[in-house]
Formats: sequence, structure tokens, C-alpha cells
Amino acid sequence: MKYHVGCTLEYAVPSPSVFVFNVTAAHLPGQTVLYEDFSTAPELPIDHYTDPATGARYHRIDTGAPHLSVRYHATVEIAPQVCDPAGVFADPPAHLSLADFAYVTPSRYCQSDLLMRLAYREFGTLPRTHAQPAAVADWIHRNVDYLVGMTTPLTSAFDIATSRAGVCRDFAHLGIAFCRALNIPARFVSAYAYDLWPRDFHAVFEARLGDRWYLFDPTRQASPGGLVRIGTGRDAADVSFASIFGPAMMTHMDVYADAGDAESESAPKEWRDRAVSSA
Amino acid sequence: MKYHVGCTLEYAVPSPSVFVFNVTAAHLPGQTVLYEDFSTAPELPIDHYTDPATGARYHRIDTGAPHLSVRYHATVEIAPQVCDPAGVFADPPAHLSLADFAYVTPSRYCQSDLLMRLAYREFGTLPRTHAQPAAVADWIHRNVDYLVGMTTPLTSAFDIATSRAGVCRDFAHLGIAFCRALNIPARFVSAYAYDLWPRDFHAVFEARLGDRWYLFDPTRQASPGGLVRIGTGRDAADVSFASIFGPAMMTHMDVYADAGDAESESAPKEWRDRAVSSA
Amino acid sequence: MKYHVGCTLEYAVPSPSVFVFNVTAAHLPGQTVLYEDFSTAPELPIDHYTDPATGARYHRIDTGAPHLSVRYHATVEIAPQVCDPAGVFADPPAHLSLADFAYVTPSRYCQSDLLMRLAYREFGTLPRTHAQPAAVADWIHRNVDYLVGMTTPLTSAFDIATSRAGVCRDFAHLGIAFCRALNIPARFVSAYAYDLWPRDFHAVFEARLGDRWYLFDPTRQASPGGLVRIGTGRDAADVSFASIFGPAMMTHMDVYADAGDAESESAPKEWRDRAVSSA
Amino acid sequence: MKYHVGCTLEYAVPSPSVFVFNVTAAHLPGQTVLYEDFSTAPELPIDHYTDPATGARYHRIDTGAPHLSVRYHATVEIAPQVCDPAGVFADPPAHLSLADFAYVTPSRYCQSDLLMRLAYREFGTLPRTHAQPAAVADWIHRNVDYLVGMTTPLTSAFDIATSRAGVCRDFAHLGIAFCRALNIPARFVSAYAYDLWPRDFHAVFEARLGDRWYLFDPTRQASPGGLVRIGTGRDAADVSFASIFGPAMMTHMDVYADAGDAESESAPKEWRDRAVSSA
Repeated sequence: MKYHVGCTLEYAVPSPSVFVFNVTAAHLPGQTVLYEDFSTAPELPIDHYTDPATGARYHRIDTGAPHLSVRYHATVEIAPQVCDPAGVFADPPAHLSLADFAYVTPSRYCQSDLLMRLAYREFGTLPRTHAQPAAVADWIHRNVDYLVGMTTPLTSAFDIATSRAGVCRDFAHLGIAFCRALNIPARFVSAYAYDLWPRDFHAVFEARLGDRWYLFDPTRQASPGGLVRIGTGRDAADVSFASIFGPAMMTHMDVYADAGDAESESAPKEWRDRAVSSA
Repeated sequence: MKYHVGCTLEYAVPSPSVFVFNVTAAHLPGQTVLYEDFSTAPELPIDHYTDPATGARYHRIDTGAPHLSVRYHATVEIAPQVCDPAGVFADPPAHLSLADFAYVTPSRYCQSDLLMRLAYREFGTLPRTHAQPAAVADWIHRNVDYLVGMTTPLTSAFDIATSRAGVCRDFAHLGIAFCRALNIPARFVSAYAYDLWPRDFHAVFEARLGDRWYLFDPTRQASPGGLVRIGTGRDAADVSFASIFGPAMMTHMDVYADAGDAESESAPKEWRDRAVSSA
Repeated sequence: MKYHVGCTLEYAVPSPSVFVFNVTAAHLPGQTVLYEDFSTAPELPIDHYTDPATGARYHRIDTGAPHLSVRYHATVEIAPQVCDPAGVFADPPAHLSLADFAYVTPSRYCQSDLLMRLAYREFGTLPRTHAQPAAVADWIHRNVDYLVGMTTPLTSAFDIATSRAGVCRDFAHLGIAFCRALNIPARFVSAYAYDLWPRDFHAVFEARLGDRWYLFDPTRQASPGGLVRIGTGRDAADVSFASIFGPAMMTHMDVYADAGDAESESAPKEWRDRAVSSA
Repeated sequence: MKYHVGCTLEYAVPSPSVFVFNVTAAHLPGQTVLYEDFSTAPELPIDHYTDPATGARYHRIDTGAPHLSVRYHATVEIAPQVCDPAGVFADPPAHLSLADFAYVTPSRYCQSDLLMRLAYREFGTLPRTHAQPAAVADWIHRNVDYLVGMTTPLTSAFDIATSRAGVCRDFAHLGIAFCRALNIPARFVSAYAYDLWPRDFHAVFEARLGDRWYLFDPTRQASPGGLVRIGTGRDAADVSFASIFGPAMMTHMDVYADAGDAESESAPKEWRDRAVSSA
């Protein structure tokens, strides 16, 4: 499936500032960037770094100009794996890959250590299959209101567990925290999402079941099958689309994710009840 | 109904300390202290204060002695009101007594402002009768584990809403916070509780419905009908059984509440499904 | 000294809502309301309640109208007490009035129980005179940035102690929490403040020293001598200028406090280094 | 310098449990394990994993036995780098290695995003040299009480910033959070510490300055020069000495770190005012 994705970000830069962007499609097995262009106006030198573990790509720009405009366009081919959720099982702690333990421990916005008892009460007796993180995503969808403006970048899963309102980032954090509390490795995925409205960057979570990472969107606003992955991390702290060092302020943002072929339009919707993993 | 209640509290006092005790039965309509004795060893001057609004009584002791022992014994007659919960209705905000507004606003351990959405999701569609706070108490009983040692005096309703474990004080705080989030005035009651095991001071909450305060015990460890009230406040901060200014440490505590007549043994249990108010 | 104070508050009321306003000058010794008018448009019945302990006055309005406008005008004579701070001493816990204990215990936004160690480190060795709460106010002025938009009505003293930014309400909460941690009764005062810019309701704190309550403004934006008191409470939860039950939203607010005689213009500024108590 | 280090950990295991230990000396440049023995009683299969990024080593044990005893002994040669702090400079955000950005973002127990303003107030005007994190460590030493029993494994830097008491883990978390708030990459180091009393595992932090990681011990209980490193992570969540999945409970713990040659006894103390980095 092919998607055309991209964004335009504009900033006022009253005094010299350093930006680290994480907006480009990751280079990963199962996700091929066919074409892309990342440019700035004014034209500036760009430091580039790719995280070897996750394929996430970071672009750093150091500017003293009064304005900065960043544009990214890409055409990306993705080949998500789709299977019957009934055949997908979670590993017990004795068999989890020790390399994945960083995704079982709590992180800044996913305080699984504070949600243990709640997670076990709500999900502890479910079979340790794809159904368990799927039930987590369902619970969040039913019990948390999707509302813009109730939360801030400082809001965490612990807050949301009681305040019960937030946006995609908050929904993903709560899903991750619940999964980790259940000893299922879970992580944060930032993405371009096909068919998302209003247009914006999206966030979902993925859970490690057997030897694959399965995608879940507790907001139900996008299909796990229609995501072009940008970043992968413990939580939003790892994959902020723009980290700014200095007094710059965003003045405009536009994000898009359009289908590039017929399958890209239909497949994600058809897969809503399947187990989808990224590669 | 008649109860014999009391306590012995012993302290090591390495250097001069001031104690404020709130362990004596309140003087209130519906609760008559037939006999009581409050004494200290060594014998010391005692400042006494009764809160005019709640009848709670405070005893202050200022001592430089290396040890302090406080003993309280009382025989108390209580006359709780018992009625059919079906006939008990909550006032809407337009008719609440403005004198009760202090019990609708959030307090230190009952952050109703943080639990609004959760309260409405869980209890918002219930009829605004005795059934609504009763459902709050049931929910807490079902969803929070009664466990000693998981919480501290700093633990609040907001913490418990997610951590899901605590003791009577924590259960009462969560009940109060939920009721206030639903615009039902609610307050904290410390008490001697008949038939409580292990023996200790107890805490429950009461909710304002119409022109009376109805008692609820989300721990299910005592009957609202078998309580000899000590203090009434916004939360535990108001009615700590002992506030200590100085380095004194408790070395021993014993608390009891025994039936003084046959009705005291049986009535509380029979009333478990009735609406009980203190006076 | 005489002040002309008042406000206009306008609301959109999409469906029936109940308002409880606390915007009228309190009736207290030392503060005489010479003239006042509280009116609504449309004209509506008003429930009125005066808290017997603090003189704070609450007006309740129940409306289904699509708009509500509230106007208050008053001319108020105040007679603050002014004295040399050197002669003002804090009572030790052994001599505090037990009636003031509610102002030593923690409240929703003033978690003195969490700030004990910090309070003792910063202020514990100061003399227990007017200088101690004055040092608290100074510390807040020096260490917290006055910034609009960094905090919300849910922000507490505990948050501000680390985040170090807020508005008058937050500054008052932190001052109260520090004083209580030092065993000095302290409470929240909402007021019309002469010479405040931009024009708004103001919040300060007062601390009990001996037999009087002394005023402190850690924002340094108004003089303790130029305040017309509206409400007095444990913290902002007690004296919100408008509590709304329903979906109403504020659309306009204007607040003023003008001098009514020559002394009102000059005295407050001259008193900046004196100990000022309200009556 | 040579140290003999090790530990004995004993557990009651009432039902099958999985343990992941992180108690062995890391294999790193500048730290050579000359001899080591990791054994369990009863003898059990052990899964072993080494984090490629940090050299931290994890041992997983799955047991149904009623008791588990783990012993570790090692002789380790360390070669810390020591230099004049005056020549050590922090990189600005424009030149930080993007590979280190994970150590600038907030983590579970190091909420640098909540401490920005406090960090800038206290340390923001210092030169961006070794002196800045050294001032952080000094501040913590002066302003936080080292007290056992005031904190739990759930306590974070944000809590400590106000509560002002904790143990080595808490001190390290606060140091890390402050450094990250100042845009200095910082991370958590668990270690065997020579001359630590009482004997226990130790925790310190290290900050990235130029091309090296420099060690700081805000507890002042051990010398950065006398540490045998076990784990390196974002915070304690990454390098818990024992993560337990199941109901096992520790019944005994002993930890030691003895000097293996004359330099090991003297050098660490001599280096207290130098800049020490691990390799």
C-alpha cells in the first residue's frame, strides 16, 4: 500500500533556537520510503540522526533567522502484516526477550508501576492473547473522552486514568501503561494516519505479542493498517515531532496522509478486526 | 442503643511536645454521653475545645515528660434514624443549603475537582436518591482492595482512584470525593465502631440528602448503625485522632467499642439495607 | 478609607445553570459597606447566604435564560489596623486558639503536609514574629514567576513549589501552605484591590499572629492596606468568585477598585513595611 | 584499581516467580571483570542478556522452589579518568550528540519537564562546565536530607524537589532531572561503592560533558572514583537490581565492595575535587 504523507511547520524565531524534528517516515523493514523531500526556508544546514534500534530519524536545525518553515513530503510503501488475532499470544515474563524489558518498565508518561492493581482488576483475568491489549484499547475508547484542550504535554497516563479525557497521545500513554502493568512490552508510535480528521500527527501504541509488535489505536480514529510510522519510543518524550531549544513558537501547522493506490483506501478499514503488526 | 467505647494511647516524648486529641464522643443531638472519663498519666492540664458546627471535641496537652498515656472511657447512647432509602432524595444545586457548600468543594484528601468525569461516568445516570451515594460505596467496596500498609497519611482520593488499595480512611475519602463531584455534600466521620475487627478507630462518610446526613461505610466492616461519632470534618485533616507538635512517637494503642444493651448488638446488622442517618 | 468597587460578569447559558457568586464585599468589623447594589439581567430571584464565621456572602441564581449578566457596585469604608511588625508574635502550638486549627491543617490547594521539610529549611530558624510569614511572602516573590496561563484552577501549592510560576491565587496558596507547615494558621482572602493592574479580582493570604490576622501579598501587586475583602476561606475552593453548576460559560468580565478619598490613594503605599491586619 | 565486590540475596518464593537480576559488574571499556561467579541455590538455569548500549547485564531465573539464594562475587579492575574540572565543558543543544537525546528527555522518575523553571533559577546562570552539574550535586547535598524510610520505589524527582528527603536513588533522580532541565544529558548509574556505610547497592548520576560521562554523587557517601558499575539507564526503572514477577519476597541481603589494592583505598578520596569519568 502506498501513501503520500507530509507536513508544513512554520515558526517565529525571535532569537536563536535549535530545533530537533522527528517528522520523517522511519526507514524500517515493511516500510519503504519511495520518495521524500525535507526542506527548510530559509535553507539551513541540517544534522541528521537515525536511531539504530527504532529507525526513527531526527533532523536538527540551528537558526538565528526570524522565521523558520519546514516542509516534508514523502511517498511511502507499507506492508503491514495482518493475521487472525486468535493465534497471537503474549509471552510470559519467563520467556519475554530481555531486550524488550525497557518496554515493560515505567516511563515518564506511562507510570505502569502506579496502575498495577487497576490493570489487574480490569484485564487480569483475560487470556494472554491479542485479546488482552485489544481489551485495553476498547476500555480506553469506552471510558476516556476524546477531547482537545483538557490535557497538556505534561499530562500522563496516571492523570488520565482518573481525569478520563485527552487526545491520541494520552490514549496511547494509558494503553502502554496498562499493557506494561500486565507485563506486556508496549511502546509509543507516532505516525501519519490515513483518513484522520482533523488532519494532524497521530499517536497509537503497539504491544509485543510473541515475536511481533501489534498496533492498537484506542481513539478508533485511524486504522492500525493505515499508518506511516515516524517514531517509536517508550512514550511521547522519545518521539516529539519537534523539540525546541530556545524561544521559537509555532505559527502554522499542516499535516496530510493521502492514499496512493486503491488498496490504501480500502485495506485499513477491512482490517479493523484483525491483528495488525508493522512488519 | 448503648455502647461502651474508649481507647488507650501511649507515647514516648523525647522532648517537649504538644498533643491535640480528638478521641472523645461528640456531643450531638441523637448522641448522648451518659458517662465519660478522659485522663492522662502523668496528670496534666488539658485545654478543651468543642467545634460549634460539628460538636467535635479537642483536648490539648502540653508536656515535657518522657512518657504520656491517655485513657478515655465512655458510655454513649445513640439514636440513629433509620428509614426506607427509596424515600430519600438529593437536593439539586439550586436547592442545596448554601451552608453546606463547604462540603461540596474539594478538600485536601478529597479532590472532587479531579474526579468529575469519572464520577459522572460511573454514577451520573443513577437516580439522585440515597441510591447514588450507596452506589458510590458499593463501587468502592468492589473496586478498591482493603489492605493495610499500602497507603500513608498523605494518600488522597485521587491516588486511590487509580492505585485501588487502602484502609477505611482512604475508602471514606474516595466516597466523599465522588459524592462532591456529583454535587452531593459529603463529609468525613471518625468513630468508634461496634464489631470492628481488628479493633481500631474507624472512618466512614456521610452524604447530605434532603435535610439529613446519611452514613455510608464503603469498607463494609462496620454498620452505619453501630457508630459512636468522634469527629466530623471535610476530610481526615479535620479530625485526626491525634495531632502532635513535636517529636513524640506512639508506642501503644488500644481501641474498643462494646455493646451496652441487646439492641446495640442486633440493630446495626438488621439495618444494613436501610438508610441510616445520625440524628 | 473609602473605595468604590465592583464588577460586571456576563455569561452565555446554553441550558439551565445554577450560579453561586461570591463577589460582594464582606460585612465585617473594620469593613463597612456604605452603599451597594447587586443586580442581574434578566432580573431573577436571588438566594443569599452569609457565612457566620467569615462574613463572606454568597448569591445563588438559577436560570434557564440564554444569557446572564451580573453587576455589582459598592462603596466600602475600611479601617485596617497598622502597627510595627516588630511587636507582632506568633503563638506556639500550645497557645494557638483551637478554633483556628482548621487553618493549620492542609487543604485542597495548600498541602502543608507535603511542604514541611522545605518550609523548615527555608524559614524554620527565623524568629516566630511577623517576620516569618513576611519572609514567606518575600521568598515567593523572589522565587516564583508571576505568569498568566501557566496554571489552572486545579493547580496547587505543591505544584507551584517546583514549577515556580503562577498567578495571585497560586502565590497565596503557597504562602498559606508554608505558614501552616510552620504551625501558623493561614487563610485565603479574595478581594477587590486598589491599584491592581490589569484589573481583576485579587487573592492574598493572611496569617494568624497573636490575636489578629495579618495580610500578606506575595505578588507585590497590591498593598495589604488597599483591599476590600470579599471572601475568606481555607483556600480558593471556599471563595470562588463564581461556582457554576451547568454548561454556562463566561463571555465578559470587568472588575474595578477606585479610591473614594485621598487617604485611600496614599495610605496603602505608605504601609508597605508595616504590619497590616484587617480589623 | 582493583575491587572485590559482591552480594548475597535471599528470597522466599511461595509460588512460582521469575526474577531478573542486574547485580553483576558491567563489561565496559575502563572496567574489566578479572574474576566473577554468579550462582543460585538451588542451582537453576539462567538466561543472560547484555544491553549492547550500556554493557548492563541481566540474569533471569524462573523458579518454583520455596527459596532462592543468589550469590555474586567478582574482582574488578577499574580505570576511571580523572581530570581538572576547569577544562570540562557542556555542549550546547546545537552540538549535543543526537544519540544522547534519550538522556535529555524526561523519564519516569526524572520529570525534567516539571523542573525547568526551578533548574534555571538555581543553576541557569552558572558556566556550562563541569561546575554546573557539580553545583546540582552540591545543592542536593545541602537541600535534601538523606533519610531512610521517607520514600518508596514510587518516589520521583518531582516529589523530592518539595519533600526534601530521600536515599541515594532519590538523590540521583533529582540530579538527573535538574541536568536534563538544563539540557545536559544525564543518566542513572547503579554500582558497588567502596567505603559505603551501611553496606548496600549505591546509585549516583552521570552527566554528559563534551565527549565523556562524568560521575556525581549528591549523597557524598561514596567517591565517584570508587565505583564498580552495575547498570546504566535513564533512571532506576532501567536498572533495578532485582525485578520480580510473582509473589517472592526478599528475606536477606548483603552487599560488599572491598579494596583489592592500595590505590583503591586512597585514590577515590584524593579525587573528590576532580572531574571523574568512567572511561
